[in-house]
Amino acid sequence: MRIARFSLDGTVGFGVVDGDELDIIRGHPFAGVERTDRRIPLEKVRLLPPVLPSKVIGIGRNYAEHARELGNEVPDVPVAFLKPSTSVAGPGDPIAYPAFSSEVHHEAELAVVIGRMCKEVPRARVHEVVLGYTCANDVTARDVQRAENQWSRAKGFDTSCPLGPWVETELDPADLAVQCTVNGEQRQLGRTSEMVRSVEDLVVHLSEAMTLLPGDVVLTGTPAGVGPLHVGDEVAVTIEGIGTLTNKVIKRD
Amino acid sequence: MRIARFSLDGTVGFGVVDGDELDIIRGHPFAGVERTDRRIPLEKVRLLPPVLPSKVIGIGRNYAEHARELGNEVPDVPVAFLKPSTSVAGPGDPIAYPAFSSEVHHEAELAVVIGRMCKEVPRARVHEVVLGYTCANDVTARDVQRAENQWSRAKGFDTSCPLGPWVETELDPADLAVQCTVNGEQRQLGRTSEMVRSVEDLVVHLSEAMTLLPGDVVLTGTPAGVGPLHVGDEVAVTIEGIGTLTNKVIKRD
Repeated sequence: MRIARFSLDGTVGFGVVDGDELDIIRGHPFAGVERTDRRIPLEKVRLLPPVLPSKVIGIGRNYAEHARELGNEVPDVPVAFLKPSTSVAGPGDPIAYPAFSSEVHHEAELAVVIGRMCKEVPRARVHEVVLGYTCANDVTARDVQRAENQWSRAKGFDTSCPLGPWVETELDPADLAVQCTVNGEQRQLGRTSEMVRSVEDLVVHLSEAMTLLPGDVVLTGTPAGVGPLHVGDEVAVTIEGIGTLTNKVIKRD
Repeated sequence: MRIARFSLDGTVGFGVVDGDELDIIRGHPFAGVERTDRRIPLEKVRLLPPVLPSKVIGIGRNYAEHARELGNEVPDVPVAFLKPSTSVAGPGDPIAYPAFSSEVHHEAELAVVIGRMCKEVPRARVHEVVLGYTCANDVTARDVQRAENQWSRAKGFDTSCPLGPWVETELDPADLAVQCTVNGEQRQLGRTSEMVRSVEDLVVHLSEAMTLLPGDVVLTGTPAGVGPLHVGDEVAVTIEGIGTLTNKVIKRD
């Protein structure tokens, strides 16, 4: 099932994507999906970020080949950082090139969407706390990341976390193709099977420390091939079994 | 004016502290404080974290003597990291010693409470976006901080961000005593005049990257004297002109 969040005529809601239509659901999807059979053509709505996370937890260097391309080792423990709620953008939303960077990179990633409030999740129960998966672009000001010890500005600026187009709830995340194109040209291509730590590993590790809330998002790291974005570029993250998240890079006014 | 957030008989609200009473205000304090003249004795309410931040932005190594005590240089740019909303605790709330650390430290800090949604704030207008100041304890799993490249787990675990007891709105933050005691014994004592970057510097720097929302909190770094907390300890952060934030360290069940 694909759950999208949308706005239409000033109202915001969730719906299940069914072909080229959206079947509106009652309330939100975290307590179970109740369809209404009120259907709207997908082309009529504006898709929003599929969830409004209270926090996005990113994982650095989770694909060995990507760690190497930036001259880093694969770390002994996951490199976990936070992106704030204000960094989230939706499908089709602009990525605003920040004034304090001149080297902004794309990072295509599988995003895990948490469905239940949870803490210290045992490995065997991780599937119970995951609502589903979506595409993410962990947009990174690489020059700022190199210059600053902690990555909150480099990876936390406004619009640095496009998410979407929807949450796919029936998906095995173990071996999916993750692709990034810029202006239609392939830049990144990897498979989630190359991840150093699996989705289970990451949820266990992070929830040891932090309560995860419904709608929170865990980014699982990016495969090799990261590179610069420029104003005017159209960047697309495609994940097998989910779909494509497309955003255009604009100059910040 | 001192604005507290409280719960009483299952309802949550804001009030202005007036001696040993709380004068309830209508709604929240971000759009202006409207007193109701409904007064409650302070001792009858439970004080809550004075705001519910969407994000807490911490600043590392902002007091030169503290940077040196941990063997660090004063950085060229502020070391900015994020603590999630799930790390926030209130005055009197327990700090739950996390199972994944055996070296948890106190860090007494002046906390800036943002009052207005803002981005790219010019220096001269910082005072317009600040609602006031409160006390914070930037509780840190020092062993985890040393072991992990990014500090999200070391400084982002549940209850690692006690805030309170209230927001003082009429305060010049330039030269205030910041003190930490553990079981009544002084551990940290510094003055905000020793900060490498001022409140203005930090709000300008952070808001270049991120939209700040009403209730968001900026921690301004800790003076020298950080040290371990143990289960059973009572840790108190006192800031001149604000008051005292007290929390007890408990074993996580």
